[in-house]
Amino acid sequence: MVTIKEVAQRAGVSIRTVSRVLNGNPHVAAATRDQVLGVIKELDFRPSAAARYMRTGQSQLIGFLTDELAQNAFGYDLIIGAQQAAWEHEKLLFLLNTGNDLHVETRALNMMRDHQVEGIIYATMYHRQIKRSQFPEDIPTVLVNCYADDRSLPSIVPDEVGGGRTATETLLKHDHRRIGFVNIAAQEPAPLGRLEGYRQALENAGIPYDPALVRFIEEPFEGLATSTYDCVLSLLQMDDPPTGIFCFNDLMVLGAYDAVRKAGLRIPEDVAIVGFDNVEILTAQIHPPLTTIELPNFEMGQLAIRMLLGLEDIARDGQPVQHMIECPLIARRSV
Amino acid sequence: MVTIKEVAQRAGVSIRTVSRVLNGNPHVAAATRDQVLGVIKELDFRPSAAARYMRTGQSQLIGFLTDELAQNAFGYDLIIGAQQAAWEHEKLLFLLNTGNDLHVETRALNMMRDHQVEGIIYATMYHRQIKRSQFPEDIPTVLVNCYADDRSLPSIVPDEVGGGRTATETLLKHDHRRIGFVNIAAQEPAPLGRLEGYRQALENAGIPYDPALVRFIEEPFEGLATSTYDCVLSLLQMDDPPTGIFCFNDLMVLGAYDAVRKAGLRIPEDVAIVGFDNVEILTAQIHPPLTTIELPNFEMGQLAIRMLLGLEDIARDGQPVQHMIECPLIARRSV
Repeated sequence: MVTIKEVAQRAGVSIRTVSRVLNGNPHVAAATRDQVLGVIKELDFRPSAAARYMRTGQSQLIGFLTDELAQNAFGYDLIIGAQQAAWEHEKLLFLLNTGNDLHVETRALNMMRDHQVEGIIYATMYHRQIKRSQFPEDIPTVLVNCYADDRSLPSIVPDEVGGGRTATETLLKHDHRRIGFVNIAAQEPAPLGRLEGYRQALENAGIPYDPALVRFIEEPFEGLATSTYDCVLSLLQMDDPPTGIFCFNDLMVLGAYDAVRKAGLRIPEDVAIVGFDNVEILTAQIHPPLTTIELPNFEMGQLAIRMLLGLEDIARDGQPVQHMIECPLIARRSV
Repeated sequence: MVTIKEVAQRAGVSIRTVSRVLNGNPHVAAATRDQVLGVIKELDFRPSAAARYMRTGQSQLIGFLTDELAQNAFGYDLIIGAQQAAWEHEKLLFLLNTGNDLHVETRALNMMRDHQVEGIIYATMYHRQIKRSQFPEDIPTVLVNCYADDRSLPSIVPDEVGGGRTATETLLKHDHRRIGFVNIAAQEPAPLGRLEGYRQALENAGIPYDPALVRFIEEPFEGLATSTYDCVLSLLQMDDPPTGIFCFNDLMVLGAYDAVRKAGLRIPEDVAIVGFDNVEILTAQIHPPLTTIELPNFEMGQLAIRMLLGLEDIARDGQPVQHMIECPLIARRSV
């Protein structure tokens, strides 16, 4: 292994000068810099991580903790977004999926501190509140898809209300007036927010809210597509059935499609369907391809890194920021 | 920060003794060990990663490189399997998806070497051959879903032939004699191996191979479900149509199901379908739930870590091992 000392000797400068060149310090004469860079190249000198840390105080490591997100196909774009943004800034990501085990989380945070991570991202599988006390005070932390109970940490969450409104407005724009909504029965930001968006869109269009058109699927959610099948079939058997249906997520749409076919109807000619999430393995491949609302996981992952690195606001007026990310329409052929 | 020196002073022992206790060295008197552990607890002493590395020569870091795998819903179980196995042994995983860019790969390997990773896992999105020269000689490396051109690195690959045989035998056991196979047209281990398994199973059952029943979908594979739809419809319109169809992967099954319905037939009563991969978001949710062959990604990820840590063979008779992992049948209701 070539050392910084050997580089300095060969270049005929001090170790401090080599260090300055490595750190991009502007107070080095151009000729000296070229001389040093030439030797670095010639000797194939690569400063070790430890040496770089001593020099810059930066470990170039970022911890990425997830609860159960990484077990779930939905969440991977978030990890990839974060990983790509980290890499653009020459940072490496530690990935750890804790399975929601607080003991694992504590040990993981200690290990990450030992490795001097520059910051931590904590991302959850579904949009929810978490405890501030889980996280150390001394490591910069950004939350994704969740927020601290005392709002003392910066966070990034999807705009659920806006997403629900967009889904419903998409159906309204195609002249649907009877619009069903298959939601899940959980007191969490996603189902509550999307329902609120659905109501707002109807109200803006002057259409009264009809509770008979809104169905809630109870936990457990294992057989979600099958439960949705029953739900949608019962909606279609109403005296005054909906002609457009908004499903809480894309998985449900598999059941909704089957129910529409079972009822002898066509998509979108007889019944239009809108999903939520944009899980492309499903949405782009089913027939007809699904019009849906995107959960912008990739963008949320990228933004989290940019916040940690100080490239985006993490506080305003002394308060940690909550970035609310728009959930855009992905128009395909089911509406 | 508490230092090892302060622990030694408070416990009235040498730094070397504290170090021995930390390393689990048996040559420490029980009373001394208890004394030291008491002080460590009392002072909340946590040895830094750098100190541990100096002590043990182990960074507790493992690099996990993927080509495009992490961009793909199929591959997450592999990452999760590796991550869980690493965590069981108190190792942290660096995740880096290189997007198949050789330049990124080289820089990533250098950064990982800088951080003294104990080993590297390289996993590819699809089963293929890679170049040995991409990888450094001085870091233990295990390949997953791929193998080195000169076979000089240990690797883990799925048993494609066995998987194709199992898929076909499953249909044979249900008395299907005309069995279609929708494959992809690529000279790679997965399509070639599964076709070989299909042929072996037919031969073992005494059924002649009929090339008219085997269809190949050409690249690009973007509209895979739609291409499969056309393929399966044409199979079902043959004079002597198949009653069982093996699809190269689960995604294709979305198109196959639509084609069977289009032909006015039922699954599995009129046509039985078998997939490959077991992407549960699809297979467990579609109707009827899909009988498929599992690509054992989780197990492959776990095994890769165990090989790196010396808990499984990495060489036999002086040659790097290639572990070939069985692809088991997941029986649901499409056969």
